[in-house]
Amino acid sequence: MASIKEKLTSIEQIPSFVYLCKWLVIAALIGALAGSASAALLYSLEWATNYREANKWIIALLPIGGLIVGLVYHYYGSSVVKGNNQLLEEFHSPHKIIPFRMAPLVLFGTVMTHLFGGSAGREGSAVQMGGAIADQFTKWFKLKKEDRKIVIIIGVSAGFASVFGTPLAGAIFALEVMILGRMRYDALLASVLGGIIADYVCKLWPVHHTHYGVELVPEITPTTLFYAIIAGLIFGLGGLAFSKATHFFTIVFKKLNYPPLRPFIGGAVVALAVYLIGTTKYIGLGVPTIVDAFNMELPWYDFAAKLLFTAFTLGAGFKGGEVTPLFYIGATLGNALIWFVPLPTELLAGMGFVAVFAAATNTPIACTIMAIELFGGEGAVYFGVACVVAYMFSGHSGIYSSQIVGSPKH
Amino acid sequence: MASIKEKLTSIEQIPSFVYLCKWLVIAALIGALAGSASAALLYSLEWATNYREANKWIIALLPIGGLIVGLVYHYYGSSVVKGNNQLLEEFHSPHKIIPFRMAPLVLFGTVMTHLFGGSAGREGSAVQMGGAIADQFTKWFKLKKEDRKIVIIIGVSAGFASVFGTPLAGAIFALEVMILGRMRYDALLASVLGGIIADYVCKLWPVHHTHYGVELVPEITPTTLFYAIIAGLIFGLGGLAFSKATHFFTIVFKKLNYPPLRPFIGGAVVALAVYLIGTTKYIGLGVPTIVDAFNMELPWYDFAAKLLFTAFTLGAGFKGGEVTPLFYIGATLGNALIWFVPLPTELLAGMGFVAVFAAATNTPIACTIMAIELFGGEGAVYFGVACVVAYMFSGHSGIYSSQIVGSPKH
Repeated sequence: MASIKEKLTSIEQIPSFVYLCKWLVIAALIGALAGSASAALLYSLEWATNYREANKWIIALLPIGGLIVGLVYHYYGSSVVKGNNQLLEEFHSPHKIIPFRMAPLVLFGTVMTHLFGGSAGREGSAVQMGGAIADQFTKWFKLKKEDRKIVIIIGVSAGFASVFGTPLAGAIFALEVMILGRMRYDALLASVLGGIIADYVCKLWPVHHTHYGVELVPEITPTTLFYAIIAGLIFGLGGLAFSKATHFFTIVFKKLNYPPLRPFIGGAVVALAVYLIGTTKYIGLGVPTIVDAFNMELPWYDFAAKLLFTAFTLGAGFKGGEVTPLFYIGATLGNALIWFVPLPTELLAGMGFVAVFAAATNTPIACTIMAIELFGGEGAVYFGVACVVAYMFSGHSGIYSSQIVGSPKH
Repeated sequence: MASIKEKLTSIEQIPSFVYLCKWLVIAALIGALAGSASAALLYSLEWATNYREANKWIIALLPIGGLIVGLVYHYYGSSVVKGNNQLLEEFHSPHKIIPFRMAPLVLFGTVMTHLFGGSAGREGSAVQMGGAIADQFTKWFKLKKEDRKIVIIIGVSAGFASVFGTPLAGAIFALEVMILGRMRYDALLASVLGGIIADYVCKLWPVHHTHYGVELVPEITPTTLFYAIIAGLIFGLGGLAFSKATHFFTIVFKKLNYPPLRPFIGGAVVALAVYLIGTTKYIGLGVPTIVDAFNMELPWYDFAAKLLFTAFTLGAGFKGGEVTPLFYIGATLGNALIWFVPLPTELLAGMGFVAVFAAATNTPIACTIMAIELFGGEGAVYFGVACVVAYMFSGHSGIYSSQIVGSPKH
């Protein structure tokens, strides 16, 4: 009998099948929970955004909101304050299980940030909720070190995929973000399953994702390729500028020794700035302006204003993430390029949307796939060129300081 | 002055810009030549296929055609006979420049194979022409070892992208095929540029790529996801069976000590088999049957017949490559699954088309992108699941024996 067993286990497909079943179950559990958490986040953010826009006086309370977030994180959240970087660090050098409190705290912090008018994103929250939920399974299922890495990947994939409605981009993002310039496929299947299931479950809840359309795509010629490269280069510098600005404001605010004071003072400055310039278009997620960037001419400086508002808000210790602001910065920067890049506005906005994000996070393939999932496959080559060139020009340090360099860019 | 220079070179964007300009020029040159070579291949194959189908008696001469190919490779081609594996080996352990003769010889061998009715593909030829052309630049431009790796990548990308009309898939294929389970981004930009330019140049010539459409795509639900996984698993076993069969027939034919005899005898067997079964649908590229697989019910055994014909033809030493037959095997296998997998025929055919190929070459991400480029983005999640699951189940040895395992699949 032993020989039959030996023969069976020597067939590679048996362990593959065991692997598939095991990770299908785990990905389904994590996906269902992380997808529901993303739905709760999207729903809360929609409420917070609508409330703020209907009651703009609440922005005056941003310092108070910041103080509350700061105090909560200072007294209850010191073990989870590193956020996305903490997930990357635990992936590279496992230390201790991500505390579950990361999930409710980041949800609370993000909703507060958006309710009172900080400028921030949401993927950071979704990814942190996904990662924190996922890592609990390490404990419950008593998983080994190598399996825990896969669990963290599933959590990141599930959070990202469900918050943006892009299952494949979420799966590749989770693999690509861990190591700059290299992708390992150990967790590919688990990551894809986690992304798809989380996206499916999130859509069962009454939430909706914004739809964008890029239909006007010219044929690729040497001229359009040249301009796509130029645009990609500018998007890369845009992503680099965002990373540098975020690091800069983080360091500036670190000079305040008592952390809860940082979002208090930061919030006061942001609220004052909103009052002085008289518009709320640079705070919150900024989705209406992102949609506009595909359809109409916008002031050229929109991208710079959003960049400053977001880097300042996040540097001060508010919560939410960088990705939706990066979409905003990219789409409006693309919109501004119409003055000297002869490509359709919607295409430039779409290219910028993903390429600035690719540059700041060093995830060019996930971003190309995201563009296809969000805008359709027509412009795939333009999106690919923009993301890859932008990746090339954003330097070796993106917004995640815990990302490891696997292979240099040049 | 030195300090200004130092300051400038300390800005990472300067080397990035130099890198971009350098590889844009090299990729344009390689892309233009490899794209034109692919056009010549496509044009010749169209001619050879049409001539054979109009003059079926020529199949009786397949042993003679085989003998000629065998003799030519034996006396003039011993330095290039390893084909695709040679490109992989030179990438991993640089030894000597790929002789330029690889390009004309593989073009000649492929056209002979198709004219007389062997069952084979064309991507092997395109990739070998691309690689051989590209590597000449190593000599002409006196490139360093690290740069030579990028040159080989560009050649593979350019050949693959232009022969199938899929620029991004070509670029990712070139990066993904080199190491199983890992992708490095050093050559990402160069690979993307090579693929796009080669595809553009190829389309300037009067050739055309076949169009396939997958428009009927159901929503992802737990049920459809389950069936997509089952289908992917079967496609993975299909890819594995093809790899095993090709290795098997190669070993069988190696028992004939005088190499030119192998395609002579192999050709006689194939010609006799065609005569006995009375159809030419299993020889050549088989594009009409691939198109049919998307639209109508086919005999369930088509995939098995094509698998045997191709593994036998290539094992005997004919030239051409494996990919179009893998498309055929996958699309007809997908077609056969309609009996127990409740997904639309065109979707199953499209999933099989890319997934069997992904399984046999271990390139799941390139194949997912290829599906999007060929069939549109609607079914992206289904294609992704099929390719990734198929990759999982095809074992660790694909059709390229020189592929290195970078990270295990489970």
